[in-house]
This record gives sequence, C-alpha cells and structure tokens, in this order.
Amino acid sequence: MKALVLRSAGHVSLDDIEQEPIPPGYARVRLLAAALNHRDVWIIEGKYAKIRYPSILGSDGCGIVEEVNDSERGLIGQRVIINPNQHWGGDERVQSADYTILGMPSPGTFAEYITVPLDRLHPAPAHLSDEEAAALPLAGVTAYRAIAVQGNVRSSDTLLISGIGGGVALFALVFARALGARTIAVTSGAPWKLERAIALGADHGVLYTEPTWADALRRRVGGFDLIVDGSAGEPFNQLVALSNPAGRIVLYGATLGGVPMLDVHRIFWRQLRIIGTTMGSDRDFAAMLAAVEQHRIRPVVDSVFLLSEYAEAFERMRKGEQFGKIVLRISA
Amino acid sequence: MKALVLRSAGHVSLDDIEQEPIPPGYARVRLLAAALNHRDVWIIEGKYAKIRYPSILGSDGCGIVEEVNDSERGLIGQRVIINPNQHWGGDERVQSADYTILGMPSPGTFAEYITVPLDRLHPAPAHLSDEEAAALPLAGVTAYRAIAVQGNVRSSDTLLISGIGGGVALFALVFARALGARTIAVTSGAPWKLERAIALGADHGVLYTEPTWADALRRRVGGFDLIVDGSAGEPFNQLVALSNPAGRIVLYGATLGGVPMLDVHRIFWRQLRIIGTTMGSDRDFAAMLAAVEQHRIRPVVDSVFLLSEYAEAFERMRKGEQFGKIVLRISA
Repeated sequence: MKALVLRSAGHVSLDDIEQEPIPPGYARVRLLAAALNHRDVWIIEGKYAKIRYPSILGSDGCGIVEEVNDSERGLIGQRVIINPNQHWGGDERVQSADYTILGMPSPGTFAEYITVPLDRLHPAPAHLSDEEAAALPLAGVTAYRAIAVQGNVRSSDTLLISGIGGGVALFALVFARALGARTIAVTSGAPWKLERAIALGADHGVLYTEPTWADALRRRVGGFDLIVDGSAGEPFNQLVALSNPAGRIVLYGATLGGVPMLDVHRIFWRQLRIIGTTMGSDRDFAAMLAAVEQHRIRPVVDSVFLLSEYAEAFERMRKGEQFGKIVLRISA
Repeated sequence: MKALVLRSAGHVSLDDIEQEPIPPGYARVRLLAAALNHRDVWIIEGKYAKIRYPSILGSDGCGIVEEVNDSERGLIGQRVIINPNQHWGGDERVQSADYTILGMPSPGTFAEYITVPLDRLHPAPAHLSDEEAAALPLAGVTAYRAIAVQGNVRSSDTLLISGIGGGVALFALVFARALGARTIAVTSGAPWKLERAIALGADHGVLYTEPTWADALRRRVGGFDLIVDGSAGEPFNQLVALSNPAGRIVLYGATLGGVPMLDVHRIFWRQLRIIGTTMGSDRDFAAMLAAVEQHRIRPVVDSVFLLSEYAEAFERMRKGEQFGKIVLRISA
C-alpha cells in the first residue's frame, strides 16, 4: 500500500509499504480521507517527545472496514471513523502513562490502509461527507472535552475562544453554540477569520493584533465565565484579567510557550481556575460523537488535497492560513 | 473603650474611643482575645487596597456578648467567635463585589468591644481556650475552604502544604489530617518548624532553603495529588512539576509574587488544575466550625501578648518567626 513515511526529521516520502497481518481483535480499514493536525507538523519538524523513525503519521481518518480478525463480521463494509486515543486508561480525569495517539508510535492514517483495534472504530456520522468525518476525531474530542467536560459550559456563560481558525478552536465554537453559551467571543489575527467565525455563530470577533484587543472585549462583553485557550504565552495574563470572578480558563495547548510573570493575585482573589486539558477519554469520544449526531454538527473543512499533494497540505498548515481542518483525500 | 487605631501608614496607637450606639440586629461583644493576620501587617504598612484612616484593625476575635439590639436576648453572656467574612453573597464559588473582611473598613477586634451583626456570631467551641478560639476564624475558614471545598481532599491523596508555620498552612495541616489524606508533606525555611509540623501529623518535612527540596520531596513521596500554596513566585513551577497527573494546586496567596515563566506544557498535558481560593463563605465557616467540633481540632497558638504589647506582637509576625497564630489577650 502507499503510505506517507517519516524517515527522519523533515524527511517525508510517499512510499510503497508491505502490510502486516491483522492481529486478533483488529480490523483493516481502507482509508477514504485523513486530516492533518499540528501534531503531525511538530513531529515532522522534530519538535515532539519520543519521535520514532520510520513512522506513518496521521491521527484522523475515515474509511471502510475491509477485513476483521474477529467474529464481528458485520462491521465489514461499514464507513467508520477511528478514535485516535489509545490506552487512555480508567481515570476519566487524565490519560494513563501508557496513553498514545494514533500515528506515531503506531502507524497512522496517512496511508491507504490502517490496522486498528476494533474498539477504536465508530460508525461515521451519516450526515457527514468522508472529508468532514475524517476532520472530526482528534480536534473534535479535544474541543468537546475542553468545552463540555473540563469547561462544563453552561447556558449562562460568556465564553471566549482564542485563536479561532485552528481545528480545536473552531470545534469549540460549534460545540459551545450547540450546547449553549450566552455569548461567544473569538479572537484571531485575520479579519476574514473573524467574519467566518461570526457566520458560524460567534457573537463577537476581535483582532488580537490590535494592542487594545482586551479592552475591546471588555467593552463589548464585560468579563468571561469561560475561556478556552491553546496559546498561553504573553497574552495569557490578559485572559486572567478578562475572567469574571469564579471564571474558568481551560488550557489545551501552548503554541506561544510559557507565561511570563503569571498574575497570581487575580487568580486567588477572584477564585479563578486554570484547567489543563488534552485530547479525550473513550467516554469523551462517544459523548462527542453523540453531540455531533444530535446537533447535526459539521466540522469545518478548510481544504482538501490528494495524498500525493501532502507537501502543499503541510505547507498550508505551517503558514497558519487555514480556517478549519486540512484534509487529505486518499481513495474514492 | 481602648482600641488599637491605625491613624496613617505605619502609625498605630492604643487610644480611648467613644462607642457608637448598637444598631438594630447587632450585638456588642466584649472581646477576650483577638488574633493577628498578615492582612493587619500589610494594612499597617500601607500595602493593601482601599485603606481608610482611621481604622481599628483585627479580623479574629473571641468574646462575651454583652448587649444585643434585638429580641434574641438569649445570646447575652455567651462566649462567641465572630465570622469575619461580610457580604460574601449568594454564590458559593466566589465572594460578591460587596465582600469585606472584619477590621477595615468596619471596626475590628483589636479593641475592648466590637459591634457586629448577630448573624456573624457563632458559639465558641467549648474545647477551646479563649486564645485558641480567637485564633480560628480567618485562617481557619481560609484553610478549610482550600483543603475541603476547593481542594476536595480525599483519603487517597498525597498532599503538600508549602510554608508551614503560617496560620493558614497550619490549619490546612490539621484539617487535612482530620479529614483524611494518605500522606502529608510540608515545606518550611526552619528545621524546628518541620519538627513541630511532624509532631502535628505531617509525614514528611523538607527545607525549601535547600536547592534540592523538590527532588527530596519526589524521592520521599513521589508526586502530589493536592498542593496547597500561599506563596506562588519562583518555586511555583516546582509545584507544577511535583504534581501528579490530574493534580490540583490550590493557591490562597502570593507572598512571593507572580510566577516567572509559568510552565504551561505540564499543566495541559497532565491535566492539572490551578484553583484560586480566598477566605470562605458563611457555609464554609459553619462547616469549618463543625469539623473543629467533630474532630476536636485545636488551633496552634504561637504566642500571647497583652493588647498593650501590640508592637511586639506585630514585630514577631513581621519577622516570620511564628509557628501558629499570634494572639492578643484583651480582657480576663
């Protein structure tokens, strides 16, 4: 089969690979579409823990079950998506030490076929195209856990989502709109992303490139009960300052790195909570899928490339030009 | 009556003051003992928000009800302690904008008499001396909320309390020991404070003046499920690093100021929670008193001074030499 193989830092190639036999309890899925995550770019660039070479990357995929090494033959021919969370463990609060994400160390979805345990397979929601279904798993479950589980969004909440345009931030927006939040504000570095976020249901959009972005949010919304942030870095103290008393800041990433001189006085006096979150448990994944079905949620697909056009797809992600998920079409 | 009056920054004097009439729904309490808090020192030094002059400081007191302007005459002659939290409001998660602490702006307990609303009075626990009862309110409710409400301590938890010797930290230790925690470690800058904390029920004590203090804790306990900290500052990232996955860090103060370059990667990947807390609601105060009664908890009293010896008492607090609460004896 053809697969995108990471040979060493920065070196990816579309190679012909021999397929392994299917272990008991596993299924072979012929992939229709796969989606990119920042994780893939960081691994390619060597900026990730415990990288192994060679690896087939890709955490998100939608495909057709072709074979199973199990009695569950009814799955064959079904269109499925794959839960990329592996070995979360029994604690809903946090992943176990054995936790891994599909696509390094185990072979991922940037390939014509993937072999995965049967319990990772879920029917792809019928109202989604192959590309939309492929866009859902990792960013979807991360956003769902951030908004609904760790953030526990309520219909009375004012909500701020920073850096709209990224996969998790956009899913956070559509989940929050569906689950209920009084007011949703978003920030971005590009005016057209703010416009598109408002079309998707955001109430306010503010350019974080403006030095007065925090004042603008305060003027328009007041303070925030819930903030979902994947950046941290220097602007984080502004998020603290924008928090209402008893506010929650759910942090799912740190693309801007550590926070210089965290303002702790506001944290204890206003009784704020900074809540770290990452990915999601099997329960979160099932709940996320149920919410997608119930509210007919459609992932935002930025663009679709052929598997052979992978270099362009990665370049688009590196430039941060996307609004929504970048998808690779693998087979018809 | 005699009262300790703050006239301007740094200027405190023991003066004769005229007493105001008792408003309806209020009681006049003849104070037996009062306890110092860091708050008093900060206000005297001008390092506090919205300081008013003149003010009678003091948030903690135990006394005898002498008069009430109400039908509840049965209170007269009772030994009481005073809930220093005023106007918390209806939200258990956080105090209202109207919240104040007894002793600036309203006259406090460093006086022979205090006039307070009847609903601030609670019977002083019978097993406590006047000095112990006076030591309880503000530090007790702050520690109880930190440990039991915000920290939600469980019997399986490994717990770290930083800066043992301070009032809140010591109450956190005795509450955690009573409510149940698997292992309790403490840090201090003084070996004798560690010894005394271990005598009070701590399992491990580590000197934070040793550069390897965090390693020592890791070696002895592993990681921590719950950390209660009132310092923040530079050591805070070590607390983050010492947190077990899904760990909670409850922050009730910041005597060391902001955190330089907060390590956010650990926070989201280990799904940690940083939980700000301050003081406590009326419900917390009642629950704290119930726990004190049930577990026969005795506040740690460091030293007792006469009201006229106030300057020595404040000096002792400024030097940080105390282990437990510094108490002023006001009348027999």
